[in-house]
Parts: sequence; structure tokens; C-alpha cells
Amino acid sequence: MDYKKIIYKSFRVTEQLKDRGQLATYIPELARVDPSMFGVHMITMDGKHYGLGDHQQKFSIQSIAKVLSLTLAYHLLGEKIWKRLGVEPSGTKFDSLILLETFEGIPRNPFVNSGALVICDILISELDDAPAEFLNFVRELSGLSTLSYSDHIADSEKATGYRNIAMCNFIKSFGNIDNEPEEVLDFYFDLCSLELNCEQVAKTFGYLANGGCKINDGKRVITKSQAKRLNALMLTCGFYDESGEFAFKVGLPGKSGVGGGIVAVYPNNYSIAVWSPGLNKKGNSYIGMKFLEELTTHSELSIF
Amino acid sequence: MDYKKIIYKSFRVTEQLKDRGQLATYIPELARVDPSMFGVHMITMDGKHYGLGDHQQKFSIQSIAKVLSLTLAYHLLGEKIWKRLGVEPSGTKFDSLILLETFEGIPRNPFVNSGALVICDILISELDDAPAEFLNFVRELSGLSTLSYSDHIADSEKATGYRNIAMCNFIKSFGNIDNEPEEVLDFYFDLCSLELNCEQVAKTFGYLANGGCKINDGKRVITKSQAKRLNALMLTCGFYDESGEFAFKVGLPGKSGVGGGIVAVYPNNYSIAVWSPGLNKKGNSYIGMKFLEELTTHSELSIF
Amino acid sequence: MDYKKIIYKSFRVTEQLKDRGQLATYIPELARVDPSMFGVHMITMDGKHYGLGDHQQKFSIQSIAKVLSLTLAYHLLGEKIWKRLGVEPSGTKFDSLILLETFEGIPRNPFVNSGALVICDILISELDDAPAEFLNFVRELSGLSTLSYSDHIADSEKATGYRNIAMCNFIKSFGNIDNEPEEVLDFYFDLCSLELNCEQVAKTFGYLANGGCKINDGKRVITKSQAKRLNALMLTCGFYDESGEFAFKVGLPGKSGVGGGIVAVYPNNYSIAVWSPGLNKKGNSYIGMKFLEELTTHSELSIF
Amino acid sequence: MDYKKIIYKSFRVTEQLKDRGQLATYIPELARVDPSMFGVHMITMDGKHYGLGDHQQKFSIQSIAKVLSLTLAYHLLGEKIWKRLGVEPSGTKFDSLILLETFEGIPRNPFVNSGALVICDILISELDDAPAEFLNFVRELSGLSTLSYSDHIADSEKATGYRNIAMCNFIKSFGNIDNEPEEVLDFYFDLCSLELNCEQVAKTFGYLANGGCKINDGKRVITKSQAKRLNALMLTCGFYDESGEFAFKVGLPGKSGVGGGIVAVYPNNYSIAVWSPGLNKKGNSYIGMKFLEELTTHSELSIF
Repeated sequence: MDYKKIIYKSFRVTEQLKDRGQLATYIPELARVDPSMFGVHMITMDGKHYGLGDHQQKFSIQSIAKVLSLTLAYHLLGEKIWKRLGVEPSGTKFDSLILLETFEGIPRNPFVNSGALVICDILISELDDAPAEFLNFVRELSGLSTLSYSDHIADSEKATGYRNIAMCNFIKSFGNIDNEPEEVLDFYFDLCSLELNCEQVAKTFGYLANGGCKINDGKRVITKSQAKRLNALMLTCGFYDESGEFAFKVGLPGKSGVGGGIVAVYPNNYSIAVWSPGLNKKGNSYIGMKFLEELTTHSELSIF
Repeated sequence: MDYKKIIYKSFRVTEQLKDRGQLATYIPELARVDPSMFGVHMITMDGKHYGLGDHQQKFSIQSIAKVLSLTLAYHLLGEKIWKRLGVEPSGTKFDSLILLETFEGIPRNPFVNSGALVICDILISELDDAPAEFLNFVRELSGLSTLSYSDHIADSEKATGYRNIAMCNFIKSFGNIDNEPEEVLDFYFDLCSLELNCEQVAKTFGYLANGGCKINDGKRVITKSQAKRLNALMLTCGFYDESGEFAFKVGLPGKSGVGGGIVAVYPNNYSIAVWSPGLNKKGNSYIGMKFLEELTTHSELSIF
Repeated sequence: MDYKKIIYKSFRVTEQLKDRGQLATYIPELARVDPSMFGVHMITMDGKHYGLGDHQQKFSIQSIAKVLSLTLAYHLLGEKIWKRLGVEPSGTKFDSLILLETFEGIPRNPFVNSGALVICDILISELDDAPAEFLNFVRELSGLSTLSYSDHIADSEKATGYRNIAMCNFIKSFGNIDNEPEEVLDFYFDLCSLELNCEQVAKTFGYLANGGCKINDGKRVITKSQAKRLNALMLTCGFYDESGEFAFKVGLPGKSGVGGGIVAVYPNNYSIAVWSPGLNKKGNSYIGMKFLEELTTHSELSIF
Repeated sequence: MDYKKIIYKSFRVTEQLKDRGQLATYIPELARVDPSMFGVHMITMDGKHYGLGDHQQKFSIQSIAKVLSLTLAYHLLGEKIWKRLGVEPSGTKFDSLILLETFEGIPRNPFVNSGALVICDILISELDDAPAEFLNFVRELSGLSTLSYSDHIADSEKATGYRNIAMCNFIKSFGNIDNEPEEVLDFYFDLCSLELNCEQVAKTFGYLANGGCKINDGKRVITKSQAKRLNALMLTCGFYDESGEFAFKVGLPGKSGVGGGIVAVYPNNYSIAVWSPGLNKKGNSYIGMKFLEELTTHSELSIF
């Protein structure tokens, strides 16, 4: 399979699209990004890199980081984390409180905001200094030894994150948050504030394409079974209430962020990151979704 | 991969489980089935068959047939069927009317009852005699030239199917059913009444493991892209509000029926049918789910 | 209190309003009514009549009839009818199925469609010929010995009443309808088809203003306690999801119908009927609501 | 009407009931109250007082105070407060977030917690020192010049009030809270912490029985029309999802609190307060509801 050619072709087709979606406006920092940005970076199992467009430009990875915090919690505690949250698609918006009320504080899955908050709570309980240790974990995965949280983004979210504050206190009211909501939220806003470029994202998530081991040095991050299960979760729940559409049209496990980034993996083949900040109506990168659809249509390669 | 050994081992482990779940009671005919039944049949791409237990015993395939009616509609009309229903997991029970009201008569996906009813309506509008032509389609896939609807099961469901009557009329009230509800429901109850054994089910669904072509004669049923998309749909929506769990633990596209049958496919590898009539709390075969989990754990083979 | 003057003044103010709302379009027969119609008729405890405008013009009373069927069921069976339905406002549209699913087939109150269907079912079970005996009951109340159901309206509703068919079968699926849905629906459409003019409506409902006894001959229809309770129900649930607004602005027990009629009572004082077929967004007579608001504002008389 | 006799009789019947309901446990301070407490106090328009049982014992009035904050806001701003909240019964629990999400941050009415929070926000915006000025307002109504907030109760609620924190931030996320959630919540917990005995409650709410004027000195608090409208609101929304039941069985405008208190008014006749801390399943005083039902049954006097 000539990935270079396929990526190139898909990129050219997609970049000509006039509609680029809308920037997220509810987080002030994200509303200031140049909407014409578009980058792609793929890393294959045999270590080849293919980068195009603005793939060296850093962006706020936002919810993509939820896969990393989940990975760390899953690694530390194993299957018992599922006592506190489910693995089912939610069928509703990522920040809806309705299902949370119906299921009495048990988030439907770890990728809706409520589920990510519970994962943060688990890490805070389990680790001495969750924000620092989580940062080290991401540094290790990305190879970026000086990576830090972006205070200006975290602060921007904190200042307007009333719905997340609501959600965290709501879960706490059902007894499914053990620590103080403020501490949980601080950590949550921190992890959403990470900034990486497409190459770094593709590299960081390589372990999910590689049976749980980092691509560059083969070091094990999680078990093979855990990697498969995280991929299953990304496929069924990674794109909010557009997850079915993504599975249907793209057919790869992936996770999007409101900053316009998407990471996807084709197990045993490649890890890929796409970024374009304009979002579609469901809150996923407009151009990013189109590009990945082109890519898997041309390559005829998907997990299905 | 020695499938024979893996199937044998998984079967032995599973058949020793004492808990067998509960028979469906809301359809009188299904409540009369022997709860100790348990059969498995796998067909690989190279034509090998592996059958164990009650794999030659016929059972009511129920909702599994929804994949076949969807296949026929998709084949006849292509992507335009998605104007009338979605491809997203529902997050709620298979026969809930709540989301249907929220989305004004547009079913979330073709595997919830409302979606299957819309597919029936599409086939009635498109074909001269939908029940007869659909039956021929299944005869062709299964190689069973004398296959017929089971009137005693269809009648049993009709007599107690008030919720499905409610659902069909509800969708009609939103304008998303074109034909008379009674005709749509008759066809729906017919298709759910089909009886096949595990071997026949595995054979019938071989095209989804084989890129859209029948395994035995290579005849194309749907395009490769359509086959992939149906697999994606089965993965995200095939097990009602346990779809995420099935993807997470088993990792294969599949579809269950309230008669206790499950079909699953591992694309480019095999098609498999399992049957055991006792159901878990979510309405899926208790033993069937356990068996498939064993199978993919032992084989370490899943799409993820 | 000079009711004549107050009615006259309120009528003049209201009839000058240019906005008259929208005719109900989902029942073909109702869409053909002259939207400029506006009539009012009040009957006081001492037998005085005040009529203005089109108060002698017959109209389809629709849901107003639900109070009469409830009265008959309450009279026949007493408090035990409340085992099968509640007395709480629904907070949602009159024909929503969402709460019905949440409460497993127990309608929130007798004035949402689902509740009225359960009352029809109760009457069918209790009476030899419910439609005939109910008609006699209304003839007795209204003094109209030749009153009949209006087949053209009932047929018009039956032909398009998919949502009511859905609702009746949905309740049946929960076990809260004993008879065949078709029979229940036929009776339901019959009772909604009654046509009366404002004077006849005001007379028919006089017993609710008069402690349970007819105004003209003092004959007891229901107990005083039952009359009070029906008034309480009309106040909290009589105007769908605008019941709070009506209590707030008008402050009288009442019931509206989609034909544009409203009946209201001021206990121990008067019974009044208003009719104007244009509806507001909540499905209640636009002008009718405005008139009654004027009336109670001028008279400074409400139950509060 | 011999109120003394009726109250006495109703009290005797009710105090013999063995079931006293359950104390509220989610607010630690309320869980410590003696569950055998039961007091009643009525004040008639002609200034007569009838007190029985523990009517001189102070209790936490909790949500009953919401009527007072609403009264002050209504007095200050008039009808424009209704741009920010509705007047419809909610059909759900008092602290549900579901309808709030459906209606995008507009509370259904001022007596659900979300509505009371919006009223607090309005008062904070409108007044220089809302907590102090509100306290003065209640001192004036009750004649208790040294009345203060009960810090131990407010603190007890603050420490466990995660759901209210959730709700306030949730409304803020929709833009319907102008001030900082923390300030709004502090005021909310303050007003819920007020402690009065039955006599003081009956006196404080006399203006709602007396057309908007205090009973003892005739001083106007709100207009007659506003008093009627507040009574209408109490009748349709005063008892959470048991409001319909209260209207049906008791037939008076009233408001309950989770501390076991209930205030009710019979316009132009009397104001009455009942207190017994054990609650029924809907969160209203078990014995209090029974007593008021007895009272209006014996007296045959209700607004209906």
C-alpha cells in the first residue's frame, strides 16, 4: 500500500473544500486560531513518517487528551475502573447532563466530559501528584521532555467552564467523585490544555496502533488486550454523537478534540493525526473528518 | 490460526456455565424453547466449517434478520436510505420511543425496532411484493430454496406486539412511514419470524466477512464499501444498549436477536453464528456473548 | 358584580385583536372552520345567561369532552380510577410519549391524550355500550336529547390519528389498556367529535360551578367533593403545558379543546364557554385565552 | 365556620397516625430533628389565632422561603421577571436538571431549585446587599426584628450541596445567571436556613391570604393581582411533583419545605402553617399533608 500517494491525494482533494466549518467560540483562546490551518501526519508501524500542510504547527489537543488519561488510569487500575463508568455510546451531546441523571452519576463512557472527569478523579486518588505524573506520562509517550500544560488555555476554559463545573458537582452529588470538585476540574482543564503538533500527536498515540507498545522503542505502555479495548472504545464513543457516522464513513478508531484535532489508528498499520480548527455541527473538525473519509475510501483500508 | 481448537476450547469453557440467562417471555412462542440449547457454527473464508453443540437446530433469528432487510434496501437504493434514518448508536433500549420523539420520527439507526420498520417501509415502496422478494433474497443467500416465514411465530408476535404497532404509528405520525402501518408491521413480523440453524446463519451472513460477496460461489451481494459500512453499523449498533460492551469485550461486528442467536463476522477471516436462548438483562444471548468473548480472547483476534 | 358589563367590555377589547392565532391543521375538518368566529356565553348560579358574538354557532368541542368522560368514570367507580392514572401536570405536550415511557404506561393525568384513552378503556369495561351510554350522559347534562357524534369529524381524526393509535397501543403494551386498542380509539374519536355551541357548553358544565349539581334542575351529577377535585384537576392540568400560565393569568379551573373552545368555571358563581378557532403555539384558543384574562382582570374575581 | 373545632378534630385524627414518614437525610442538620414533632397554627382574616401541638417550636423553613424571595423580586421588578423563568409545573423532581437542559437554562417555575436560584440572582443584581435587604423584608413580614440566618444550617447545606452548585453553574452556562455562582449559592443557602415556628410562618404569609396586605396592620406588600398570581403559582407548583395531588386532595395554594413545614392560604379566610419533619416519598411533610387533607375535607372549604 503506497500510503504516501494516498495521503497526498486525499490532502489535495480536501484542502480545496471551501467550507471549513466554524471555530469553537466558547473557549476564547480557541476562537483566535487561524481557521485556514490544515495539517496531517502519519506514522506507520515500520517507522515511516508522512507529513503535509501545517503538521508542525502546535494546536490545543483538548479532548484527545482524554484517551491518554484513560490509558494511564486503565494501566494503573485495570478493569476495576469500569465500576465507575460505562463503555456505551451516549447517543447525546458530549456535555449533556440528561443521561447522567438517568444513570445516577455513572457516565456512559470515558470520552463524554463526565466520564473524563471521573477518570481525573481516579487519577487524583491513585497518584501523589496526578497533574505532574500525568504530564510525565505524556512526556514519555511523546518524547517531549519539556512538554507543559498551557496555562493561558486552561485559564481560558476555567473562566467559562460553568457547564463542566456543573457536571463535576452533579456527579459528586451522586457520590461518584471522591475528591473536591475544584481539584478535579483543575486537573481536567490542565489536561485539555496540552498543545502538540500533528507529528507529536501521531507519535504519542502510536501505542494504540502497535498492540500497546510504543512504535519507536517498542516499550510496553498497556497490555495488548487493553489496547484493543481502548480502540473499541474510540470507535464506538470517540466522536460524541457522530461516532456512528465516523465508524460508518471512516471505519477507524479515533478521537477528536474541540481544537480541531483528530487522532486515528489503523491497528498494526499506522497512527495518524489531522488538524484543522473549523468544526462541523457536531463539534468535530470539518476538514479533518472529510480528509479521513477520503483516505480510507482511496486506500480501501479500514478495520471493517 | 487453528480455529478448530479455539472454538472447541471456548465452547467447553462456556457450556459449563450454570447461569444461562432468561428466556424472552413477551413472545409466547419463544418462551417455549428448551433453555439448555447451545450451538455454534463457524465458516472461514477458505470454506472450512466448524460446528459444535446444537448447531443444526433451527431457531427464530428475530432481529438478526434486520441486517438482511437493510442489506436489500441498501443494495436497491444506496446511500439515499440514510435520509430516513441515522447511523448512530441509540444509547437506549431497542424499543424506546423517547429518542424517536426527540428526533421527530427519524430512527437513530436501522437496528433499533423503529429503524427496522422504516427499512420495511422502504422495501414495500420499492418492490412489487416485498415479503416475497425479500424471502427470495434470503433463500439466495442461505441456499435454502424452500425457506418460508414461520406463521406461528409471526402470529404470536402480532398478537402481543402492541409496542411495535405503537412505534410504527408513531413514526407514521411524523411522516416517515409511507405505507399503511398494518402492511409495514405484517412484513416486519414476517421477517423476524425466519427460522434457521447456526450453520445456515453463518452461511447466510458470509458476504459480510467476504467484502460483499457470498463465500461459496463468490457472487456479489453488495459493494465492498457497503459491506464495510454494514459491518461498522453492526459494531456500533448491533447489540442495542450493550453494543459498546460487545465491541469492548468481543471486538467483532455482529447482530443479536431476542431468540438467543448472534451472528458475528471477522472481515476476511470468518463468519460465525452462536445460539443459546437464555438472555442477559440487555436482551442478548447470555451464553452466546460469553462464548464470543472467550473466542476472541483465546484467538487474540479481533478487528482492533 | 355586574357580569353583563364585564363580559361586554372584555369581549369588545378582545375582538379588536388582530392576531387570531392559527387553525389546527392536523385534523382536516378543523382546518376548514372560519377563523374569524368568536363567541362567549356565561351562565350564573342564579340562572342568568349572557351571550355575545357567535355563541350560537356549533363547534367541535374536542378535548373539552375529556372532562365529561372523566366525570362519568369518576361517578361510576370513584377514587379507584386513580390506580390507573395520575393527577399531576405533565410538563410536556399533550401527546408526548416520553413521560408515558418513564412512568411505564401510567398517564400523568386524565387530560393528556393518554389519560383520556385510559378513561375510555375504563368506561368500555364498565358499561355495556360505552359510546351510547356516554352520549346519553351528555344529552342529560346538556338537555340536548338528539345530540349525536359527528361522524365526519370522527372519521377525519381516525384517518390521520396515527399518534393516538401509537399512544393507545403503547399503553396497551404496558398492560394499562384492557380492551382492544381499536375499540378504545373508536370511542375516543367519537367523544372528541361532539359539536356544541357556547351556550350548550356553558350549560353542560354547570355542575362543576354548582358543587356537582346541574344548575337548571339541581340534579346531582357527582358529589361535592368530586366536583371540587375535578376543578382542581382542570386548574392544574386543563391547558396542557400552558396550564400554569392559565392559572397564573386567568385563575379559573377550565379545559380547552383544539377546536378553539374553552370552558371555565368560577365555583359558586358561573360557568362560561368561549370559542374562537385560532390557536396559540400551545394549542389553546388564542382569543379565548385573552378574553378570559380580560374577564378576570376586570372582575378581579378568580379563585385566588 | 368554626375553625377552632375543625382544626382540633383534624389535629387529633392526624396525630394518631403511626407512619410519620422519613427525615430528610441529605442535609445533616435536618437529620437531627425529633421526628415526633407536630405543630399547627392558623391565623384568620379577623385576627384569630388557633395553635396546637409544637406550634411554638422553631424549624428550618427551607423551600418555603422561596415564596418570600419571589415576592420581593416580583414586588421590585414586576412581570419582567418572567423573562427569565416560567410559571409551569415541572412534572419532575424539584432538583432535576433534565428540563433545564431541554429549556436551555430557563427554569420551569420559581419553586424548583433552579428557579429559586434565578430569583436569588435577580435580587443580587437589583439590591445593594441582597442577603441583608431580604432579611429585613422577612423581619418586616414576620414582625421578628432580630431574625437572622442560621449559619449552622446554611453551612450544613453548603458542605453537601453539590447538586445545587451543579444547578447554578449549569444555568450560568446557559447565560441565565448574571452574578458569580458562589455568591448566588451563598444567598440561596442563607434564605433556606431561616428558622421560624408555625405561628411566625402563618403570620409571615398572611399577605397572601389578604389580597397582598399584611393581616395585622393592613400594610400592602404586593398588589392584589400579584398576590393572586403567587397563589396560583403555589397551587400549580408548590409541592414539586406532588402539586397536582395537593390541589386535588387539599385544594389550597401552599408551599412545602424539606424541613417538614407547609404553609397554605385560603384567600380571604386564613393562613395556616403545619410542621412535622417526617417526609413522604415526594419530599413533603407526611403528617402535614394528611392534616391539611383532613382540614379541608371537614371544613368543605377549599378554593374549588
